[in-house]
Amino acid sequence: MKFSRLIEQLTERLRILPSVGPKSAQRMALHILERDREGALALATAIVEACENVGHCSQCRNFTEQTICDICSSDRRNRQVVCVVESPADVLAIEQSASFDGVYFVLMGRLSPIEGITAHDIGLPLLETRLASGDVSEVILATNPTVEGEATAHYIADRASKHGVEVTRIAQGVPLGGELEYIDSGTLMHAFSGRRKVGTS
Amino acid sequence: MKFSRLIEQLTERLRILPSVGPKSAQRMALHILERDREGALALATAIVEACENVGHCSQCRNFTEQTICDICSSDRRNRQVVCVVESPADVLAIEQSASFDGVYFVLMGRLSPIEGITAHDIGLPLLETRLASGDVSEVILATNPTVEGEATAHYIADRASKHGVEVTRIAQGVPLGGELEYIDSGTLMHAFSGRRKVGTS
Repeated sequence: MKFSRLIEQLTERLRILPSVGPKSAQRMALHILERDREGALALATAIVEACENVGHCSQCRNFTEQTICDICSSDRRNRQVVCVVESPADVLAIEQSASFDGVYFVLMGRLSPIEGITAHDIGLPLLETRLASGDVSEVILATNPTVEGEATAHYIADRASKHGVEVTRIAQGVPLGGELEYIDSGTLMHAFSGRRKVGTS
Repeated sequence: MKFSRLIEQLTERLRILPSVGPKSAQRMALHILERDREGALALATAIVEACENVGHCSQCRNFTEQTICDICSSDRRNRQVVCVVESPADVLAIEQSASFDGVYFVLMGRLSPIEGITAHDIGLPLLETRLASGDVSEVILATNPTVEGEATAHYIADRASKHGVEVTRIAQGVPLGGELEYIDSGTLMHAFSGRRKVGTS
């Protein structure tokens, strides 16, 4: 025995959400029906509105419902410095750290021969057009410190230097609040090789 | 800085789902937009269809989009035995155990003076009408073994015996596969007081 058809359908479709298995989907479906049908209908509207109207910024590829996103169209951002990240969540994290006042380029992925993701899929032709325009003085590579993120950074660095643009990579080392004994050896290796002189007055 | 308005709206509305905090809601919103807009639109449709069409069975109060649910309208169920449970998920669990062939009465909650949930809210007038009809020979109380579940069971037992209906409570004891050393003392107390004679040939 299962639930009625519409509840089964709802449960199954909730599973498109990340890390929602059969049991949580069931719990979500029953919760919606028992407690908050109004909120659920508002959620359905929000899903439709977002899916139908959110596109990509024509300059940085980040999500936006406008042609050009708020950051790319802002007067207060330095357009000469472009930070390349893998996903919109990365932009949010960097913005929250308030450590950067340039603009972004969002790959919406990373190079991955295994998954068949090519330079074209992550918008590199668009990035190259920007680099070739001569308006960019520095590219900061902030892809994830994973194998694929590193490979992507390497590839972009290669292309950017061909256009005479300075290329930098965000520093890798021990994270704040981390305890050395629990940090993996790859990170420690980077932390040592990237060590900096301590200024003495 | 936040995401664009529609993404923010989607993120916020995803939080009506149980155990979805700000971070998972953001992850869900981005996942939908990046990977599966089609699936998300199907989810939105399923939400609307379920919220608008799923009501309660007029006999057992379980969720159904018909007037009478599949179990109540089945020929193969014994209508003289009514199992009282708190929620539709409990019905599913009992059905999956294949331990019961009677019909259900789903309270859709439990008596809770603190939350202001009364006998009327959990449909007890409807249950009493059924008990008064003389068609029910046994009520099995399968509310949760919590303080409120017990109080609810007690209240229903009281009413049912007034109508001359036999009342039983599902057994409490050690669960299968449980290890005694990890079982709480309340459960062990029930297991001892409810001990049964072992048949010897």
